Amino acid sequence: MSGAEEGRELQVLDPDECYRLLAEEEIGRLGVNAEHYPLIFPVNYALDGETIVIRTDVGTKLGAADHANVTFEVDRIDRRTRSGWSVLVRGLAEAVTTEHRAELVERTRASGVEPWAPGEHGHWMRLIPQGISGRRIVPGQLPPAFGPEGYL
Amino acid sequence: MSGAEEGRELQVLDPDECYRLLAEEEIGRLGVNAEHYPLIFPVNYALDGETIVIRTDVGTKLGAADHANVTFEVDRIDRRTRSGWSVLVRGLAEAVTTEHRAELVERTRASGVEPWAPGEHGHWMRLIPQGISGRRIVPGQLPPAFGPEGYL
Repeated sequence: MSGAEEGRELQVLDPDECYRLLAEEEIGRLGVNAEHYPLIFPVNYALDGETIVIRTDVGTKLGAADHANVTFEVDRIDRRTRSGWSVLVRGLAEAVTTEHRAELVERTRASGVEPWAPGEHGHWMRLIPQGISGRRIVPGQLPPAFGPEGYL
Repeated sequence: MSGAEEGRELQVLDPDECYRLLAEEEIGRLGVNAEHYPLIFPVNYALDGETIVIRTDVGTKLGAADHANVTFEVDRIDRRTRSGWSVLVRGLAEAVTTEHRAELVERTRASGVEPWAPGEHGHWMRLIPQGISGRRIVPGQLPPAFGPEGYL
């Protein structure tokens, strides 16, 4: 449509690549249906295999997510080259409680997720993926706005 | 809970500050209820006053969002200082068609949003905010992991 899009390419990422990218990051966005909206919360996360582990306080996120269909989005954006990737996980969220077997509780806590936000985060949640998809926008060979040498 | 949280502060942002932050960025994440999940799509956006303008092709995003409750999340994260802000808009999405008055169509197109992804983006959508909220995590005075001088 415009010159800015010339040479740009959209790649679909396979699941292995999606999980590899997830393993590199530490902030994602939890999507939860609550209060008549698809609410989006940035959260710290860690991986336990392919399961996403987050910690939360008792509130909207936990109440609406437990045993519900949730999503988890992670991306990395480069405004200079107008490129980046994003991964979207669809899954089932489950609060980890003392009713779970000890081995699961231990593995969840061992994932090492550590929230940046101050305050209580005594509740742990596992997000079991049921689908994962991703895409990447690759910059063209000749970014139209400026060449690499023009960027200070 | 851990040393990493010491001195860290969580601020609630007022709506003016939220809109000011939205005006600085160009990528946000559209939340749409579709396919039994709160799907999250990164998109380029621009502002027309307090209305968020995005462009899209005909597909999941457009079909599920038009005349529906959607959300729009924008954030900026600094992994080094483990801080950042996020803003969440709750609103009503509306596809802009030729049935709208010409002045609205013109203003929408004049917002200047330009998708990074290649391909058709011939459909325009306006997201009319019905609520906006934001928060910021401010780093502590003494980040525990390392001092500024320790970061190369």
